[in-house]
Amino acid sequence: MRRGLFVAKPRIAVVDTTFSRVDMGALALLALKEFDVDTVRVTVPGIKDLAVECKRQLDAGADVALALGMVGGADIDRQCAHEASLGIQFAKLLTNKHIVEVFVHEKEARNESDLKSLFVDRTQKHAENAARLVLQPDWFTRRAGKGLRQGRDDVGSIS
Amino acid sequence: MRRGLFVAKPRIAVVDTTFSRVDMGALALLALKEFDVDTVRVTVPGIKDLAVECKRQLDAGADVALALGMVGGADIDRQCAHEASLGIQFAKLLTNKHIVEVFVHEKEARNESDLKSLFVDRTQKHAENAARLVLQPDWFTRRAGKGLRQGRDDVGSIS
Amino acid sequence: MRRGLFVAKPRIAVVDTTFSRVDMGALALLALKEFDVDTVRVTVPGIKDLAVECKRQLDAGADVALALGMVGGADIDRQCAHEASLGIQFAKLLTNKHIVEVFVHEKEARNESDLKSLFVDRTQKHAENAARLVLQPDWFTRRAGKGLRQGRDDVGSIS
Amino acid sequence: MRRGLFVAKPRIAVVDTTFSRVDMGALALLALKEFDVDTVRVTVPGIKDLAVECKRQLDAGADVALALGMVGGADIDRQCAHEASLGIQFAKLLTNKHIVEVFVHEKEARNESDLKSLFVDRTQKHAENAARLVLQPDWFTRRAGKGLRQGRDDVGSIS
Amino acid sequence: MRRGLFVAKPRIAVVDTTFSRVDMGALALLALKEFDVDTVRVTVPGIKDLAVECKRQLDAGADVALALGMVGGADIDRQCAHEASLGIQFAKLLTNKHIVEVFVHEKEARNESDLKSLFVDRTQKHAENAARLVLQPDWFTRRAGKGLRQGRDDVGSIS
Repeated sequence: MRRGLFVAKPRIAVVDTTFSRVDMGALALLALKEFDVDTVRVTVPGIKDLAVECKRQLDAGADVALALGMVGGADIDRQCAHEASLGIQFAKLLTNKHIVEVFVHEKEARNESDLKSLFVDRTQKHAENAARLVLQPDWFTRRAGKGLRQGRDDVGSIS
Repeated sequence: MRRGLFVAKPRIAVVDTTFSRVDMGALALLALKEFDVDTVRVTVPGIKDLAVECKRQLDAGADVALALGMVGGADIDRQCAHEASLGIQFAKLLTNKHIVEVFVHEKEARNESDLKSLFVDRTQKHAENAARLVLQPDWFTRRAGKGLRQGRDDVGSIS
Repeated sequence: MRRGLFVAKPRIAVVDTTFSRVDMGALALLALKEFDVDTVRVTVPGIKDLAVECKRQLDAGADVALALGMVGGADIDRQCAHEASLGIQFAKLLTNKHIVEVFVHEKEARNESDLKSLFVDRTQKHAENAARLVLQPDWFTRRAGKGLRQGRDDVGSIS
Repeated sequence: MRRGLFVAKPRIAVVDTTFSRVDMGALALLALKEFDVDTVRVTVPGIKDLAVECKRQLDAGADVALALGMVGGADIDRQCAHEASLGIQFAKLLTNKHIVEVFVHEKEARNESDLKSLFVDRTQKHAENAARLVLQPDWFTRRAGKGLRQGRDDVGSIS
Repeated sequence: MRRGLFVAKPRIAVVDTTFSRVDMGALALLALKEFDVDTVRVTVPGIKDLAVECKRQLDAGADVALALGMVGGADIDRQCAHEASLGIQFAKLLTNKHIVEVFVHEKEARNESDLKSLFVDRTQKHAENAARLVLQPDWFTRRAGKGLRQGRDDVGSIS
């Protein structure tokens, strides 16, 4: 992670899609401004293209990747999301690095306004997660079992 | 990518099937004429043969591949498409290159004329995507979150 | 592919099962007699044993493999076929060679006579496909998008 | 397979679970006494632990493995079996050796007595299959397409 | 496993999530106090992050890992669990080590109190399993086919 005399900052790859109806990459980059990290952004056509692009960026030196995608409302789209997710699982195992998968399903939301808010909340919280995985992994341990949620409010622990 | 004194053009592998009811390979090659790329075309029996043939072409020097296939209307065909897609996911990860999957489901269309138009629009747009992934990857970033669709009209962003 | 002064013929591995109710291996070997190829035949218990046996034969020098199996009519059998197919997808990617999967589902047929004819037609056509994949791959390109079928009559192109 | 001056017998790994309600490992070892093979037995908690343990034993020198497990009757159990099976598919491909998967589904049986008989018949026949895969692979070729079944009576060929 | 003059204790990686509504990592560490093992604990956001973190810990020297997660009650959550499980299957095969998967489904329980008791019983018993897999693998063989359960009471053997 050293270049010359300087210690490189952790690098986060932000990978999103043209299929999504919200600019998730821009939302992620905005959230990452609060952290001392470098970023690289790449956009691909759809969610099935995310795994290999994340792997390419991780192989090229990124420390963690954000895989940002929207899952359409058609019946076949859920199967596509499943295939995309399995690709992401394997990309993680082949690189030994974390890829934070941020998928928003069109069907999750009650209406367009609710959908937009899902996109914003989930992308922001998961972008923060990606940064913390490399900068302060203990952050998660202190919140183990706390019922944290991304996209909706946290649900908390069972008392 | 250099041969002798010349810089080789990016090479796109176009892989299609005899199972399809439309000559998707020809449609892709037509669309790719608008781009400064070399092409190689291979046809295999069905969609489950696409992943390994794409991998063979990528291993032999292609920079990106188009996996073109029709998914039949029978119940089992969707499972076959799922298996073919997972093979393609892994072929990407093993080659570190993009494979643009272009699947048309017989059941997607209202009638034969609608089906034909789906084939044409989706194959053409995805062939263009394949070329842009190697020639001008920034094209996608400028359209991130724009709700682009292949096969149907774009749906646009959520305002 | 050379042994001593001689050029070896392409070798096709024919792998079938004792679970099947038709001797698919014999049907395939019969069809392959029309082609200038060597063959090796191995039989395993069921469809989940096909992938690794095909890989073993391909690793031992076969140029292409036929994975021949019957899928039973019980509910769980379709899941088994799915697992077997995914194994075959990966065996292809690990060997960089084609494995032509020939599965006949008991449920596809209207009666035993129809089932028998499905077995014969699909096995013969796919055995020919396996031979052509190594002997004359252009055969497929000339039939791209022609709606070829194995087991049933071809359905043809969309006009 | 040679140790000093002696030719080692084929070694069969018998891997079973504490989740099962029948001692499948003991049934397999009993059946294997009829064959000139060495055996090694390992028990793991459940079916999802079978794939890696089989791989460990095969990597350590076993020639074939028996993966013995019971699938519970709850809805989620079938998904677990699917995951376990896919793990076993990959363990085979990574070792290039056969793993004979012997799964008994609680739901397959009409009652406890029927279930017990399923366990006994399937485990015994598959243990014999495992031994024959290394000792006399031609045994299967002579029975190709004969409709052999494990757990129930053979169904025979289609005439 | 030796460091200097000392024999290192087996090391168990405990990996849990912030998504869970119970601190499963703490439950596991408590159960492991009864065993002569070292532990390392890492918390990640959700179940899809478990496989790669377990693999990282196993690659770094842990002898076995506990993958602890809660599966939400939404329809899509079961698919996520499936993807997480397949990742864990592959992480095992790539490391040749056991990962004990401890998933609690929100839907399994009758109420919150039942859910809490499921968490406690399953995590404790599986933490003990993880320790025994490295310390006393024969423990399992003596209980083969005994119908052991984690989360609920054992169901016993079929007589």
